[in-house]
Amino acid sequence: MDKTNKRPLILVSNDDGITSKGISELIKYLRPLGEIVVMAPDTPRSGSASALTVTEPISYRLLRREVGLSVYKCSGTPADCVKLAFHTVLDRKPDLVVGGINHGDNSAVNVHYSGTMGVVIEGCLKGVPSIGFSLCSHEPNADFEPAGSYVRKIARMVLEKGLPALTCLNVNIPDLKELQGIKVCEQTKGQWVNEWENFAHRGDSHYYWLTGNFEATDNENTKNDHWALTNGWVAVTPVTVDVTAYGLIDELNTWF
Amino acid sequence: MDKTNKRPLILVSNDDGITSKGISELIKYLRPLGEIVVMAPDTPRSGSASALTVTEPISYRLLRREVGLSVYKCSGTPADCVKLAFHTVLDRKPDLVVGGINHGDNSAVNVHYSGTMGVVIEGCLKGVPSIGFSLCSHEPNADFEPAGSYVRKIARMVLEKGLPALTCLNVNIPDLKELQGIKVCEQTKGQWVNEWENFAHRGDSHYYWLTGNFEATDNENTKNDHWALTNGWVAVTPVTVDVTAYGLIDELNTWF
Repeated sequence: MDKTNKRPLILVSNDDGITSKGISELIKYLRPLGEIVVMAPDTPRSGSASALTVTEPISYRLLRREVGLSVYKCSGTPADCVKLAFHTVLDRKPDLVVGGINHGDNSAVNVHYSGTMGVVIEGCLKGVPSIGFSLCSHEPNADFEPAGSYVRKIARMVLEKGLPALTCLNVNIPDLKELQGIKVCEQTKGQWVNEWENFAHRGDSHYYWLTGNFEATDNENTKNDHWALTNGWVAVTPVTVDVTAYGLIDELNTWF
Repeated sequence: MDKTNKRPLILVSNDDGITSKGISELIKYLRPLGEIVVMAPDTPRSGSASALTVTEPISYRLLRREVGLSVYKCSGTPADCVKLAFHTVLDRKPDLVVGGINHGDNSAVNVHYSGTMGVVIEGCLKGVPSIGFSLCSHEPNADFEPAGSYVRKIARMVLEKGLPALTCLNVNIPDLKELQGIKVCEQTKGQWVNEWENFAHRGDSHYYWLTGNFEATDNENTKNDHWALTNGWVAVTPVTVDVTAYGLIDELNTWF
Protein backbone atom coordinates (compact mmCIF):
# COMPACT_ATOMS: atom_id res chain seq x y z
CA MET A 1 0.00 0.00 0.00
CA ASP A 2 1.27 3.43 -0.95
CA LYS A 3 1.47 5.40 2.27
CA THR A 4 1.57 8.76 0.50
CA ASN A 5 -2.00 8.14 -0.67
CA LYS A 6 -3.12 8.01 2.93
CA ARG A 7 -2.04 11.53 3.84
CA PRO A 8 -5.04 13.80 4.39
CA LEU A 9 -6.04 15.89 1.38
CA ILE A 10 -6.62 19.56 2.27
CA LEU A 11 -8.24 22.09 -0.07
CA VAL A 12 -7.23 25.70 0.64
CA SER A 13 -8.78 28.92 -0.64
CA ASN A 14 -9.32 32.48 0.53
CA ASP A 15 -10.86 35.80 -0.43
CA ASP A 16 -7.82 38.10 -0.36
CA GLY A 17 -6.50 36.37 -3.46
CA ILE A 18 -3.69 34.00 -4.33
CA THR A 19 -0.91 36.60 -3.82
CA SER A 20 -1.87 37.55 -0.25
CA LYS A 21 0.47 36.83 2.62
CA GLY A 22 -2.33 35.18 4.61
CA ILE A 23 -2.77 32.26 2.22
CA SER A 24 0.99 31.69 1.96
CA GLU A 25 1.23 31.53 5.73
CA LEU A 26 -1.76 29.19 5.91
CA ILE A 27 -0.14 26.80 3.42
CA LYS A 28 3.06 26.85 5.50
CA TYR A 29 1.21 25.93 8.70
CA LEU A 30 -0.89 23.19 7.06
CA ARG A 31 1.78 21.42 5.00
CA PRO A 32 2.91 19.09 7.80
CA LEU A 33 -0.68 17.85 8.10
CA GLY A 34 -1.26 16.55 4.59
CA GLU A 35 -1.29 17.05 0.86
CA ILE A 36 -2.38 20.59 -0.03
CA VAL A 37 -4.34 21.72 -3.07
CA VAL A 38 -4.83 25.47 -3.37
CA MET A 39 -7.47 27.04 -5.63
CA ALA A 40 -7.73 30.74 -4.83
CA PRO A 41 -9.07 33.86 -6.56
CA ASP A 42 -6.69 35.63 -8.93
CA THR A 43 -7.77 39.02 -7.52
CA PRO A 44 -8.83 40.25 -4.07
CA ARG A 45 -12.44 39.24 -3.37
CA SER A 46 -13.05 40.55 0.14
CA GLY A 47 -16.71 40.81 1.11
CA SER A 48 -17.75 38.13 -1.39
CA ALA A 49 -19.81 36.09 1.07
CA SER A 50 -21.05 32.95 -0.75
CA ALA A 51 -21.45 34.84 -4.04
CA LEU A 52 -21.24 32.80 -7.26
CA THR A 53 -20.31 33.86 -10.78
CA VAL A 54 -23.42 33.31 -12.90
CA THR A 55 -23.22 35.87 -15.72
CA GLU A 56 -19.90 34.78 -17.22
CA PRO A 57 -17.75 31.67 -17.38
CA ILE A 58 -14.69 31.24 -15.16
CA SER A 59 -11.33 29.55 -15.67
CA TYR A 60 -8.35 28.37 -13.63
CA ARG A 61 -4.63 27.88 -14.18
CA LEU A 62 -1.86 25.86 -12.48
CA LEU A 63 0.73 28.18 -10.92
CA ARG A 64 3.05 25.65 -9.29
CA ARG A 65 3.31 22.01 -8.32
CA GLU A 66 5.73 20.28 -5.99
CA VAL A 67 5.58 17.21 -3.76
CA GLY A 68 2.51 17.58 -1.52
CA LEU A 69 1.43 20.95 -2.91
CA SER A 70 -0.46 22.13 -6.02
CA VAL A 71 -1.38 25.79 -6.43
CA TYR A 72 -4.03 27.07 -8.84
CA LYS A 73 -5.50 30.50 -9.40
CA CYS A 74 -9.11 30.97 -10.50
CA SER A 75 -11.05 33.87 -11.99
CA GLY A 76 -14.12 33.17 -9.84
CA THR A 77 -15.31 34.02 -6.35
CA PRO A 78 -14.13 32.14 -3.24
CA ALA A 79 -17.21 29.86 -3.36
CA ASP A 80 -16.61 29.30 -7.10
CA CYS A 81 -13.03 28.26 -6.29
CA VAL A 82 -14.23 25.49 -3.99
CA LYS A 83 -16.90 24.28 -6.41
CA LEU A 84 -14.47 24.29 -9.35
CA ALA A 85 -11.70 22.54 -7.41
CA PHE A 86 -14.07 19.70 -6.54
CA HIS A 87 -15.02 19.41 -10.22
CA THR A 88 -11.55 19.66 -11.73
CA VAL A 89 -8.29 19.41 -9.77
CA LEU A 90 -9.21 17.23 -6.75
CA ASP A 91 -8.81 13.53 -7.51
CA ARG A 92 -10.82 12.55 -4.43
CA LYS A 93 -13.06 14.17 -1.84
CA PRO A 94 -10.82 16.23 0.44
CA ASP A 95 -10.56 15.54 4.17
CA LEU A 96 -10.61 19.24 5.04
CA VAL A 97 -11.46 22.57 3.41
CA VAL A 98 -9.70 25.62 4.86
CA GLY A 99 -10.27 29.31 4.09
CA GLY A 100 -7.81 32.07 4.99
CA ILE A 101 -5.86 33.25 6.70
CA ASN A 102 -8.01 36.31 6.14
CA HIS A 103 -6.51 39.76 6.56
CA GLY A 104 -9.24 41.10 8.85
CA ASP A 105 -11.76 40.13 11.51
CA ASN A 106 -14.62 37.82 10.45
CA SER A 107 -16.22 37.48 13.87
CA ALA A 108 -19.75 38.56 14.83
CA VAL A 109 -22.08 39.44 11.92
CA ASN A 110 -19.10 39.57 9.54
CA VAL A 111 -19.63 35.87 9.05
CA HIS A 112 -22.40 36.87 6.61
CA TYR A 113 -20.18 39.05 4.40
CA SER A 114 -16.94 37.10 4.53
CA GLY A 115 -15.59 35.44 1.40
CA THR A 116 -13.34 33.39 3.67
CA MET A 117 -16.47 31.98 5.26
CA GLY A 118 -17.90 31.61 1.72
CA VAL A 119 -15.11 29.06 1.17
CA VAL A 120 -15.93 27.34 4.44
CA ILE A 121 -19.71 27.25 3.96
CA GLU A 122 -19.18 25.77 0.50
CA GLY A 123 -16.88 23.06 1.88
CA CYS A 124 -19.42 22.32 4.60
CA LEU A 125 -22.32 22.12 2.12
CA LYS A 126 -20.25 19.55 0.21
CA GLY A 127 -20.00 17.44 3.36
CA VAL A 128 -16.35 18.13 4.20
CA PRO A 129 -15.15 19.39 7.61
CA SER A 130 -14.29 23.05 7.00
CA ILE A 131 -12.56 25.86 8.89
CA GLY A 132 -12.07 29.57 8.25
CA PHE A 133 -9.13 31.39 9.83
CA SER A 134 -8.97 35.18 10.12
CA LEU A 135 -6.43 37.49 11.73
CA CYS A 136 -7.75 40.77 13.19
CA SER A 137 -5.48 42.95 11.06
CA HIS A 138 -5.98 44.37 7.58
CA GLU A 139 -2.23 44.97 7.11
CA PRO A 140 -0.97 43.32 3.90
CA ASN A 141 2.23 42.46 5.80
CA ALA A 142 0.55 41.45 9.08
CA ASP A 143 2.45 39.16 11.47
CA PHE A 144 0.81 35.72 11.30
CA GLU A 145 3.47 33.92 13.36
CA PRO A 146 1.67 34.01 16.73
CA ALA A 147 -1.39 32.50 14.99
CA GLY A 148 0.55 29.68 13.35
CA SER A 149 0.57 27.09 16.12
CA TYR A 150 -3.15 27.65 16.76
CA VAL A 151 -4.01 27.25 13.08
CA ARG A 152 -2.12 23.98 12.93
CA LYS A 153 -3.56 22.69 16.20
CA ILE A 154 -7.17 23.43 15.28
CA ALA A 155 -6.78 21.96 11.77
CA ARG A 156 -5.19 18.83 13.25
CA MET A 157 -8.04 18.41 15.74
CA VAL A 158 -10.66 18.72 12.99
CA LEU A 159 -8.80 16.20 10.81
CA GLU A 160 -8.69 13.82 13.77
CA LYS A 161 -12.22 14.25 15.12
CA GLY A 162 -14.25 15.56 12.17
CA LEU A 163 -17.20 17.89 12.53
CA PRO A 164 -20.93 17.03 12.61
CA ALA A 165 -22.87 17.39 9.35
CA LEU A 166 -23.92 20.95 8.45
CA THR A 167 -21.43 22.56 10.86
CA CYS A 168 -18.11 24.29 10.32
CA LEU A 169 -15.76 26.58 12.27
CA ASN A 170 -15.15 30.32 12.10
CA VAL A 171 -11.80 30.96 13.84
CA ASN A 172 -10.70 34.54 14.54
CA ILE A 173 -7.33 35.43 16.00
CA PRO A 174 -6.34 38.69 17.72
CA ASP A 175 -3.42 40.59 16.18
CA LEU A 176 -1.21 40.16 19.25
CA LYS A 177 2.24 38.72 19.96
CA GLU A 178 0.90 36.85 23.00
CA LEU A 179 -2.36 34.93 22.80
CA GLN A 180 -4.33 33.69 25.84
CA GLY A 181 -5.35 30.37 24.31
CA ILE A 182 -8.51 29.08 22.62
CA LYS A 183 -12.05 29.99 23.61
CA VAL A 184 -15.15 28.36 22.06
CA CYS A 185 -17.62 31.16 21.36
CA GLU A 186 -21.02 32.29 20.13
CA GLN A 187 -21.50 34.76 17.28
CA THR A 188 -21.62 38.29 18.74
CA LYS A 189 -24.88 40.17 18.14
CA GLY A 190 -24.78 43.76 16.95
CA GLN A 191 -24.62 45.83 13.80
CA TRP A 192 -22.46 48.00 11.61
CA VAL A 193 -23.12 51.76 11.84
CA ASN A 194 -21.82 54.85 9.99
CA GLU A 195 -21.33 52.60 7.01
CA TRP A 196 -20.73 55.04 4.16
CA GLU A 197 -18.21 57.73 3.44
CA ASN A 198 -19.71 60.23 1.02
CA PHE A 199 -17.64 62.03 -1.62
CA ALA A 200 -18.94 64.72 -3.96
CA HIS A 201 -18.13 63.98 -7.60
CA ARG A 202 -18.28 66.66 -10.32
CA GLY A 203 -20.43 68.84 -8.11
CA ASP A 204 -23.83 67.28 -8.69
CA SER A 205 -23.35 63.61 -7.94
CA HIS A 206 -21.95 61.59 -5.06
CA TYR A 207 -20.19 58.34 -4.54
CA TYR A 208 -20.01 56.20 -1.45
CA TRP A 209 -17.23 54.04 -0.04
CA LEU A 210 -18.14 51.30 2.42
CA THR A 211 -16.61 51.85 5.86
CA GLY A 212 -18.18 51.88 9.36
CA ASN A 213 -17.89 50.66 12.93
CA PHE A 214 -19.29 47.50 14.43
CA GLU A 215 -21.41 48.07 17.53
CA ALA A 216 -21.95 44.96 19.61
CA THR A 217 -25.25 44.91 21.48
CA ASP A 218 -24.02 42.31 23.95
CA ASN A 219 -20.51 43.48 24.78
CA GLU A 220 -20.69 42.12 28.31
CA ASN A 221 -21.44 38.56 27.20
CA THR A 222 -18.22 36.66 27.85
CA LYS A 223 -19.41 33.82 25.60
CA ASN A 224 -19.11 36.00 22.49
CA ASP A 225 -16.37 35.96 19.88
CA HIS A 226 -16.07 39.74 20.10
CA TRP A 227 -15.39 39.53 23.83
CA ALA A 228 -12.86 36.73 23.34
CA LEU A 229 -10.92 38.69 20.69
CA THR A 230 -10.92 41.88 22.77
CA ASN A 231 -9.47 39.88 25.65
CA GLY A 232 -6.68 38.21 23.68
CA TRP A 233 -8.24 34.79 23.01
CA VAL A 234 -8.40 32.84 19.77
CA ALA A 235 -12.17 32.69 19.13
CA VAL A 236 -13.53 29.42 17.72
CA THR A 237 -17.17 29.94 16.75
CA PRO A 238 -19.06 26.90 15.43
CA VAL A 239 -21.32 27.80 12.51
CA THR A 240 -24.32 25.99 11.07
CA VAL A 241 -25.32 26.01 7.40
CA ASP A 242 -28.87 24.98 8.35
CA VAL A 243 -30.18 28.49 8.92
CA THR A 244 -33.77 27.44 9.64
CA ALA A 245 -35.11 29.44 12.60
CA TYR A 246 -36.70 26.37 14.18
CA GLY A 247 -37.91 28.34 17.19
CA LEU A 248 -40.24 30.39 14.99
CA ILE A 249 -42.04 27.50 13.26
CA ASP A 250 -44.82 26.97 15.83
CA GLU A 251 -45.60 30.69 15.96
CA LEU A 252 -45.76 30.96 12.16
CA ASN A 253 -48.09 27.97 12.02
CA THR A 254 -50.63 29.99 14.02
CA TRP A 255 -50.52 32.75 11.38
CA PHE A 256 -51.58 30.84 8.28
CA MET B 1 -51.88 64.33 13.25
CA ASP B 2 -50.98 63.64 9.63
CA LYS B 3 -52.31 60.18 8.87
CA THR B 4 -50.10 59.76 5.80
CA ASN B 5 -47.04 59.73 8.09
CA LYS B 6 -48.42 56.68 9.81
CA ARG B 7 -48.45 54.45 6.75
CA PRO B 8 -45.85 51.70 6.99
CA LEU B 9 -42.57 52.43 5.23
CA ILE B 10 -41.40 49.49 3.09
CA LEU B 11 -37.93 49.22 1.55
CA VAL B 12 -37.79 47.02 -1.55
CA SER B 13 -34.76 45.60 -3.36
CA ASN B 14 -33.83 42.50 -5.34
CA ASP B 15 -30.95 40.80 -7.15
CA ASP B 16 -32.33 40.53 -10.69
CA GLY B 17 -32.00 44.29 -11.06
CA ILE B 18 -34.31 47.28 -11.23
CA THR B 19 -35.65 46.42 -14.72
CA SER B 20 -36.81 42.89 -13.88
CA LYS B 21 -40.48 41.99 -13.99
CA GLY B 22 -40.30 40.44 -10.50
CA ILE B 23 -39.58 43.72 -8.71
CA SER B 24 -42.28 45.59 -10.65
CA GLU B 25 -44.80 42.94 -9.65
CA LEU B 26 -43.63 43.06 -6.03
CA ILE B 27 -44.10 46.84 -5.93
CA LYS B 28 -47.62 46.42 -7.34
CA TYR B 29 -48.58 43.89 -4.66
CA LEU B 30 -47.08 45.90 -1.79
CA ARG B 31 -48.35 49.39 -2.66
CA PRO B 32 -51.69 49.01 -0.86
CA LEU B 33 -49.77 48.22 2.35
CA GLY B 34 -47.68 51.37 2.72
CA GLU B 35 -45.21 53.85 1.35
CA ILE B 36 -42.64 52.12 -0.88
CA VAL B 37 -38.99 53.06 -1.37
CA VAL B 38 -37.12 50.97 -3.94
CA MET B 39 -33.32 50.82 -4.11
CA ALA B 40 -32.29 48.05 -6.47
CA PRO B 41 -29.19 47.08 -8.47
CA ASP B 42 -28.79 48.71 -11.88
CA THR B 43 -27.68 45.36 -13.36
CA PRO B 44 -28.60 41.71 -12.68
CA ARG B 45 -26.84 40.46 -9.55
CA SER B 46 -28.07 36.90 -9.18
CA GLY B 47 -25.97 34.74 -6.88
CA SER B 48 -24.67 37.73 -4.94
CA ALA B 49 -25.44 36.31 -1.48
CA SER B 50 -24.58 39.01 1.11
CA ALA B 51 -21.62 40.26 -0.95
CA LEU B 52 -20.53 43.87 -0.44
CA THR B 53 -18.66 46.23 -2.75
CA VAL B 54 -15.36 47.02 -1.03
CA THR B 55 -12.87 47.72 -3.83
CA GLU B 56 -14.69 50.64 -5.45
CA PRO B 57 -17.22 53.29 -4.49
CA ILE B 58 -20.90 52.96 -5.42
CA SER B 59 -23.56 55.49 -6.35
CA TYR B 60 -27.33 55.71 -6.74
CA ARG B 61 -29.81 57.72 -8.79
CA LEU B 62 -33.52 58.60 -8.52
CA LEU B 63 -35.49 57.05 -11.39
CA ARG B 64 -39.03 58.08 -10.48
CA ARG B 65 -41.11 59.52 -7.66
CA GLU B 66 -44.86 59.64 -7.22
CA VAL B 67 -47.20 59.67 -4.22
CA GLY B 68 -46.26 56.70 -2.03
CA LEU B 69 -43.44 55.44 -4.24
CA SER B 70 -39.80 56.41 -4.83
CA VAL B 71 -37.58 54.30 -7.10
CA TYR B 72 -33.78 54.42 -7.10
CA LYS B 73 -31.17 52.37 -8.91
CA CYS B 74 -27.79 51.65 -7.37
CA SER B 75 -24.46 50.42 -8.75
CA GLY B 76 -23.85 48.12 -5.76
CA THR B 77 -24.84 44.62 -4.71
CA PRO B 78 -28.24 43.78 -3.20
CA ALA B 79 -26.81 44.07 0.34
CA ASP B 80 -25.14 47.39 -0.61
CA CYS B 81 -28.55 48.65 -1.80
CA VAL B 82 -30.09 48.08 1.62
CA LYS B 83 -27.14 49.61 3.48
CA LEU B 84 -27.05 52.65 1.20
CA ALA B 85 -30.83 53.18 1.34
CA PHE B 86 -30.68 53.29 5.15
CA HIS B 87 -27.87 55.85 4.93
CA THR B 88 -29.33 58.09 2.22
CA VAL B 89 -32.92 57.93 0.96
CA LEU B 90 -34.89 56.58 3.95
CA ASP B 91 -36.02 59.36 6.27
CA ARG B 92 -36.82 56.92 9.06
CA LYS B 93 -36.25 53.27 9.93
CA PRO B 94 -38.51 51.23 7.64
CA ASP B 95 -41.20 48.92 9.01
CA LEU B 96 -40.40 46.18 6.53
CA VAL B 97 -37.61 45.21 4.12
CA VAL B 98 -38.63 43.03 1.17
CA GLY B 99 -36.46 41.32 -1.44
CA GLY B 100 -37.75 39.96 -4.76
CA ILE B 101 -39.76 38.73 -6.35
CA ASN B 102 -36.82 36.63 -7.48
CA HIS B 103 -36.90 34.92 -10.84
CA GLY B 104 -35.89 31.47 -9.55
CA ASP B 105 -36.08 29.15 -6.57
CA ASN B 106 -34.23 30.23 -3.39
CA SER B 107 -35.29 27.30 -1.22
CA ALA B 108 -32.99 24.71 0.39
CA VAL B 109 -29.26 25.55 0.34
CA ASN B 110 -29.87 28.31 -2.23
CA VAL B 111 -30.52 30.59 0.73
CA HIS B 112 -26.71 30.83 1.01
CA TYR B 113 -26.15 32.04 -2.57
CA SER B 114 -29.23 34.20 -3.05
CA GLY B 115 -28.86 37.95 -3.49
CA THR B 116 -32.58 38.22 -2.71
CA MET B 117 -31.82 36.71 0.67
CA GLY B 118 -28.80 39.05 0.86
CA VAL B 119 -31.34 41.90 0.90
CA VAL B 120 -33.37 40.14 3.58
CA ILE B 121 -30.44 39.20 5.81
CA GLU B 122 -29.23 42.80 5.66
CA GLY B 123 -32.66 44.13 6.64
CA CYS B 124 -32.78 41.61 9.47
CA LEU B 125 -29.29 42.53 10.72
CA LYS B 126 -30.51 46.13 10.85
CA GLY B 127 -33.35 45.09 13.13
CA VAL B 128 -36.20 45.38 10.62
CA PRO B 129 -38.69 42.55 9.88
CA SER B 130 -37.62 41.26 6.46
CA ILE B 131 -39.01 38.88 3.83
CA GLY B 132 -37.64 37.43 0.60
CA PHE B 133 -40.03 36.28 -2.13
CA SER B 134 -38.96 33.97 -4.97
CA LEU B 135 -40.94 32.38 -7.80
CA CYS B 136 -39.72 28.99 -9.03
CA SER B 137 -39.25 30.14 -12.63
CA HIS B 138 -36.25 31.74 -14.32
CA GLU B 139 -38.40 33.09 -17.18
CA PRO B 140 -37.93 36.86 -17.58
CA ASN B 141 -41.66 37.09 -18.38
CA ALA B 142 -42.83 34.62 -15.70
CA ASP B 143 -46.45 34.81 -14.51
CA PHE B 144 -46.40 36.29 -11.00
CA GLU B 145 -50.19 36.72 -10.71
CA PRO B 146 -50.94 33.51 -8.78
CA ALA B 147 -48.26 34.57 -6.26
CA GLY B 148 -49.64 38.08 -5.79
CA SER B 149 -52.27 37.49 -3.12
CA TYR B 150 -49.80 35.36 -1.10
CA VAL B 151 -47.10 38.02 -1.28
CA ARG B 152 -49.52 40.66 -0.04
CA LYS B 153 -50.95 38.44 2.70
CA ILE B 154 -47.57 37.41 4.09
CA ALA B 155 -46.23 40.99 4.00
CA ARG B 156 -49.39 42.22 5.75
CA MET B 157 -49.02 39.58 8.49
CA VAL B 158 -45.39 40.53 9.11
CA LEU B 159 -46.27 44.23 9.25
CA GLU B 160 -48.99 43.42 11.77
CA LYS B 161 -47.17 40.91 13.98
CA GLY B 162 -43.49 41.65 13.41
CA LEU B 163 -40.77 38.99 13.60
CA PRO B 164 -38.49 38.08 16.52
CA ALA B 165 -35.01 39.64 16.55
CA LEU B 166 -32.44 37.92 14.29
CA THR B 167 -35.10 36.11 12.24
CA CYS B 168 -36.51 36.71 8.77
CA LEU B 169 -38.55 34.81 6.17
CA ASN B 170 -37.55 33.03 2.96
CA VAL B 171 -40.73 32.57 0.92
CA ASN B 172 -40.66 30.44 -2.23
CA ILE B 173 -43.63 30.05 -4.55
CA PRO B 174 -44.22 27.30 -7.12
CA ASP B 175 -44.69 28.40 -10.73
CA LEU B 176 -48.27 27.15 -10.92
CA LYS B 177 -51.65 28.66 -11.76
CA GLU B 178 -53.24 26.98 -8.72
CA LEU B 179 -51.46 27.04 -5.35
CA GLN B 180 -52.37 24.77 -2.41
CA GLY B 181 -51.90 27.42 0.27
CA ILE B 182 -49.08 28.29 2.69
CA LYS B 183 -46.86 25.77 4.45
CA VAL B 184 -44.32 26.73 7.13
CA CYS B 185 -41.13 24.79 6.35
CA GLU B 186 -37.58 23.86 7.26
CA GLN B 187 -34.61 24.39 4.94
CA THR B 188 -34.16 21.28 2.78
CA LYS B 189 -30.82 19.50 3.19
CA GLY B 190 -28.86 18.41 0.14
CA GLN B 191 -26.32 19.64 -2.35
CA TRP B 192 -25.74 20.80 -5.90
CA VAL B 193 -24.08 18.29 -8.22
CA ASN B 194 -22.78 18.38 -11.82
CA GLU B 195 -22.11 22.05 -11.24
CA TRP B 196 -19.91 23.01 -14.19
CA GLU B 197 -20.28 22.92 -17.92
CA ASN B 198 -16.86 22.77 -19.53
CA PHE B 199 -16.06 24.45 -22.85
CA ALA B 200 -12.77 24.23 -24.72
CA HIS B 201 -11.38 27.64 -25.65
CA ARG B 202 -8.68 28.10 -28.30
CA GLY B 203 -7.71 24.45 -28.01
CA ASP B 204 -5.50 24.55 -24.92
CA SER B 205 -7.61 26.24 -22.30
CA HIS B 206 -11.07 25.73 -20.86
CA TYR B 207 -13.79 27.79 -19.36
CA TYR B 208 -16.57 26.77 -17.02
CA TRP B 209 -20.18 27.92 -16.73
CA LEU B 210 -22.01 27.33 -13.46
CA THR B 211 -24.99 25.00 -13.87
CA GLY B 212 -26.00 21.82 -11.99
CA ASN B 213 -28.84 19.97 -10.29
CA PHE B 214 -29.89 20.12 -6.68
CA GLU B 215 -30.09 16.74 -4.97
CA ALA B 216 -32.07 16.76 -1.75
CA THR B 217 -30.90 14.21 0.80
CA ASP B 218 -34.20 14.27 2.67
CA ASN B 219 -36.78 14.26 -0.11
CA GLU B 220 -39.30 12.34 1.97
CA ASN B 221 -39.36 14.90 4.78
CA THR B 222 -42.71 16.65 4.40
CA LYS B 223 -41.51 19.50 6.63
CA ASN B 224 -39.04 20.69 3.97
CA ASP B 225 -39.39 23.63 1.62
CA HIS B 226 -38.38 21.43 -1.31
CA TRP B 227 -41.24 19.02 -0.54
CA ALA B 228 -43.73 21.87 -0.16
CA LEU B 229 -42.78 23.42 -3.51
CA THR B 230 -42.91 20.08 -5.32
CA ASN B 231 -46.41 19.59 -3.94
CA GLY B 232 -47.77 22.99 -4.92
CA TRP B 233 -47.50 24.86 -1.61
CA VAL B 234 -46.10 28.32 -0.94
CA ALA B 235 -43.09 27.53 1.29
CA VAL B 236 -42.43 29.95 4.18
CA THR B 237 -39.07 29.06 5.74
CA PRO B 238 -38.02 31.10 8.79
CA VAL B 239 -34.32 31.96 8.71
CA THR B 240 -31.95 32.97 11.50
CA VAL B 241 -29.00 35.33 11.09
CA ASP B 242 -27.45 33.94 14.28
CA VAL B 243 -25.61 31.07 12.61
CA THR B 244 -23.89 29.85 15.78
CA ALA B 245 -24.03 26.03 15.91
CA TYR B 246 -24.97 26.02 19.61
CA GLY B 247 -25.23 22.23 19.70
CA LEU B 248 -21.51 21.89 18.99
CA ILE B 249 -20.21 24.17 21.77
CA ASP B 250 -20.00 21.57 24.56
CA GLU B 251 -18.20 19.09 22.31
CA LEU B 252 -15.67 21.70 21.16
CA ASN B 253 -15.01 22.67 24.77
CA THR B 254 -13.72 19.14 25.35
CA TRP B 255 -11.20 19.57 22.52
CA PHE B 256 -9.21 22.57 23.73
